[in-house]
Amino acid sequence: MSYASYPPAMRRLVNELTKLPTIGEKSAVRLAYHLLSHDPSQALELSEAIKEARLIVRECERCFGLSEEPLCEICCDQARTRSIVCVVEKPADLIAIERSMGYRGLFHVLHGLWSPLRGVNPEKTRIRELFDRIERTHADSDSSERIEEIVLATGTTVEGDATALYIANSVKHFPVRISRIAQGLPKGGELEYADEMTLSHALEGRRRM
Amino acid sequence: MSYASYPPAMRRLVNELTKLPTIGEKSAVRLAYHLLSHDPSQALELSEAIKEARLIVRECERCFGLSEEPLCEICCDQARTRSIVCVVEKPADLIAIERSMGYRGLFHVLHGLWSPLRGVNPEKTRIRELFDRIERTHADSDSSERIEEIVLATGTTVEGDATALYIANSVKHFPVRISRIAQGLPKGGELEYADEMTLSHALEGRRRM
Repeated sequence: MSYASYPPAMRRLVNELTKLPTIGEKSAVRLAYHLLSHDPSQALELSEAIKEARLIVRECERCFGLSEEPLCEICCDQARTRSIVCVVEKPADLIAIERSMGYRGLFHVLHGLWSPLRGVNPEKTRIRELFDRIERTHADSDSSERIEEIVLATGTTVEGDATALYIANSVKHFPVRISRIAQGLPKGGELEYADEMTLSHALEGRRRM
Repeated sequence: MSYASYPPAMRRLVNELTKLPTIGEKSAVRLAYHLLSHDPSQALELSEAIKEARLIVRECERCFGLSEEPLCEICCDQARTRSIVCVVEKPADLIAIERSMGYRGLFHVLHGLWSPLRGVNPEKTRIRELFDRIERTHADSDSSERIEEIVLATGTTVEGDATALYIANSVKHFPVRISRIAQGLPKGGELEYADEMTLSHALEGRRRM
């Protein structure tokens, strides 16, 4: 008989860690060993932080960004332009746009993209809620809340493009402007190293100076 | 004013995750988002598994392998050869040797290697406890527990070699055989692709057939 395994509680921890994205068994063992062999308070604080975040953080009822309140800070901020809604795939994209300081409107977080190859249809995302949201603000007599522009800021991948197109087609019957974030050379980009698709989009989207 | 950040509970979780080895901020955000957006029970089970493992798993009082009891299963197993102790750096190495099914003696887990460059001196590992353990079994009249051979199975890195040499020199005054795991070609290895150090060790360690 051989004891080719860790104690049960460590095995359970390794097993839970491997359920996380990008964590394989070797990484899980390394992380578990780190948690067991360093300062005990570090492991207990991580345990507590996971539980607390899971119990407290929810999706904003309007934009589906992450929030600890029914409505997130952005949706509550009356100083923002409320007639324009930027549609993103996930909370990290919203944060990236906020950090760019180039946008002062509201958001809508889809929590996914239309991806037939991975079996994700639009109904599994918050696309339906976006349509409802537009409809609601147009039915409402309060014009300050009326959505007049939708900026489709999903990634420029096949899935991001497909989702943007799907949304654009679906909201055509509303009197809203639809725009797509620009594609082109990244800041500091050299033409020599840009791929053909990026260059072709950069030329196509050229603007008068 | 911009809200370029996640809700406080998510920030705390991201912060705790970045304390883990190999987890940078982008990975931490991805892991935290996964935990918050999937099945809630998955996050709560991970939280519980961390806490439980941290509270239950300890080091075996004799070999310092991971255990849920004061003495681990290997140290308690009277069917194993108790006169031979294999010295390894970390629990994962012990598990690797057990899985090889090629060893039936006891272990000693150092939990670190002598690494002057990283400021780890031998006293920060369980090396002192190894010397005490050898001394104790030799002072003891019970000959069945007497350690007669130490197999130095630290890795064949600079630090693994230095630690093995340090231990070998320090236990010279005990009547114990000291051996080092063999270095050579890995199983299935082609000479053409072996590095020079490996080949030189493989030739030096050649055995009569």
